[in-house]
Amino acid sequence: MDNFTYHNPTRLHFGKGQIAKIATEIPADATVLLLAGGGSIKTNGVYDQVKTALGERTVHEHWGVEANPDFDTLIPAVELCRAEKIEWVLAVGGGSVLDGAKLICAAVNYDGDPWQILQDQGASVTSALPLGAVLTLPATGSEANGASVISRRAQQSKLHFISPFVFPQFSVLDPETTFTLPPRQVANGIGDAFCHVLEQYLTFPAHAAVQDQFSESILRVLITEGPKTLAEPTDYDARANLVWAATCALQGIIGVGVPQDWSSHMIGHELTALHGIDHARTLAIVLPSLLEAQRKTKGAKLLQYAEQVWGIHEGDEETRITAAITRTREFYESIGIPTRLQDYNVSADVAPRVSARLASRGMDAIGEHGDLTPARIEAILRAAA
Amino acid sequence: MDNFTYHNPTRLHFGKGQIAKIATEIPADATVLLLAGGGSIKTNGVYDQVKTALGERTVHEHWGVEANPDFDTLIPAVELCRAEKIEWVLAVGGGSVLDGAKLICAAVNYDGDPWQILQDQGASVTSALPLGAVLTLPATGSEANGASVISRRAQQSKLHFISPFVFPQFSVLDPETTFTLPPRQVANGIGDAFCHVLEQYLTFPAHAAVQDQFSESILRVLITEGPKTLAEPTDYDARANLVWAATCALQGIIGVGVPQDWSSHMIGHELTALHGIDHARTLAIVLPSLLEAQRKTKGAKLLQYAEQVWGIHEGDEETRITAAITRTREFYESIGIPTRLQDYNVSADVAPRVSARLASRGMDAIGEHGDLTPARIEAILRAAA
Repeated sequence: MDNFTYHNPTRLHFGKGQIAKIATEIPADATVLLLAGGGSIKTNGVYDQVKTALGERTVHEHWGVEANPDFDTLIPAVELCRAEKIEWVLAVGGGSVLDGAKLICAAVNYDGDPWQILQDQGASVTSALPLGAVLTLPATGSEANGASVISRRAQQSKLHFISPFVFPQFSVLDPETTFTLPPRQVANGIGDAFCHVLEQYLTFPAHAAVQDQFSESILRVLITEGPKTLAEPTDYDARANLVWAATCALQGIIGVGVPQDWSSHMIGHELTALHGIDHARTLAIVLPSLLEAQRKTKGAKLLQYAEQVWGIHEGDEETRITAAITRTREFYESIGIPTRLQDYNVSADVAPRVSARLASRGMDAIGEHGDLTPARIEAILRAAA
Repeated sequence: MDNFTYHNPTRLHFGKGQIAKIATEIPADATVLLLAGGGSIKTNGVYDQVKTALGERTVHEHWGVEANPDFDTLIPAVELCRAEKIEWVLAVGGGSVLDGAKLICAAVNYDGDPWQILQDQGASVTSALPLGAVLTLPATGSEANGASVISRRAQQSKLHFISPFVFPQFSVLDPETTFTLPPRQVANGIGDAFCHVLEQYLTFPAHAAVQDQFSESILRVLITEGPKTLAEPTDYDARANLVWAATCALQGIIGVGVPQDWSSHMIGHELTALHGIDHARTLAIVLPSLLEAQRKTKGAKLLQYAEQVWGIHEGDEETRITAAITRTREFYESIGIPTRLQDYNVSADVAPRVSARLASRGMDAIGEHGDLTPARIEAILRAAA
């Protein structure tokens, strides 16, 4: 096991009616920015619950944070925070609203162009406004970590930053607020969380028994509870298990002391930037193809994954590895997420563009061994056609 | 799944050489109380590493915190803190030193008799000195929670308190510092952590899939890595897995949103108070007997435990439950922890004393269903003779 530091200070209020906790989490005299996406929180009652909890506080609202939150959508909110002397930001929505809120919190007191925060991946962030969240879409884990992914469509860019200053002070996770989500978004959440676990687990053995078994636990829960909650969206326990699994997938505990990969995410971000494909769907395209390309260096963990997650015990090692990769692809397909570029009307010609864009930002040797060169990334995407 | 709030603000520095992190965790101008047990940290190099990390800070030392830390040992340290205007407490040792440090931190600014903190289980604590820890014995999870158990031999009492104010600000977990522990202490740590998981897991189904599988993960790790690290104390990875498993067992993540029991601990504390039996050993006495007594109400989870943790698939339900309880007892015996009162030269006559003492403090209906009456507690202990 490698050395690590684990620290996750976010207070998580999980369950029915927990939106009311906002009333005690945010100081009664705070001036608050409420950040939101589209209008769904007005139709499902979340907005009303939030406003009730905020009570007499002065609240400014900024709406319109889109999927893959855009830098240019967020900057006006930074200016609003400065103009109105906002003291707290409350993000109400899914991972995109959360990620956007983190950039706003970091940018308000930031000296210089906030795009620099993305360019140096958060290294230059030294403070942030306090952030609270009401999560309405289980997927990204952003409600319980210090990471944020921001797009900038004007530049066809999608970059991330990580900073300890942007951990939410608190997050509310009420599974009931997710009952009215479109099935496509629920499926995307399942697929996103699944890949988050694999990026931290499917590398090489590091003698980290607890982390491995926690990862396998979350994967099995997603495999069993995911289809259940898609079939019965208002089954509270199934949805609660999905919400908690997605949070645990990226709150840090499974990734401590072990090698991590994240190349499926890096490659996938480019597909979103270039073609606007949903984030989770880019992962479903890249991941099976990447696992196939890395079947030798990931072999030991692929065999463990085959056995512990999919119950594959038959056949020689190559057969079991192939079966595990096939089951992974089939799992995405089974929840309604196609796994080929052609399913999204994208040709294999995107492959060299993606690898060149990654290389231009220094990502010319990614993966846990740094062995994914531009040529190999291109081959992975061609194989995903 | 029940509603819950999860919050664990402790920063954990895990791995080789991490004691050096103290230098950046405690302010350079802080006046520090170093709390310790016996002299083992002077012979294994931990004390020297700690002193090096503390550098030029003003450090007062209080030694002699014993296993099952005694109220009367700790109060002089409270007075020392007040007299020397201590600003930080650094606990260097196992769970007993940690627990003792928590009482000291809570007591320094406490108005009134600090024993009240134990009597109201922490409800009256409103502040505490900041606490850091160097953990040298994997067992209690105290390095990553807000709980503390304190004995008062003069009254034959052993009580606990819980407060969010006494979470350590940081804890250092360097598995190498535990290599020189006596095997008996390592075994006790394994047994203690094992019971911590069972107290949060072996109740009744609550549709909490992640929590259940995380619990089963830790149990399996303790079963495989425990004997390994007893046989090879300097195998870094095995010891690291034990240390991390013990922390994860009681840092909160497995117990959220599920019913909990803790009656083995409550009964066990009385055996320690009356007869000085090691804490983990009291659990090994009580637990198998308690599971047998509760085999009906705990039946569904005992069957799940049998299958997921022990791989027991054969036989009817009663047979599998019996096998799981037997395997539990055998596990304790296999790591050198006897599971009968007679092994500790204690007669069954202790049974009514324990149940009466618990009842006298209001614990006349404990367990997840509140169905362990004094008569049933007495029967459990008689069956453990």
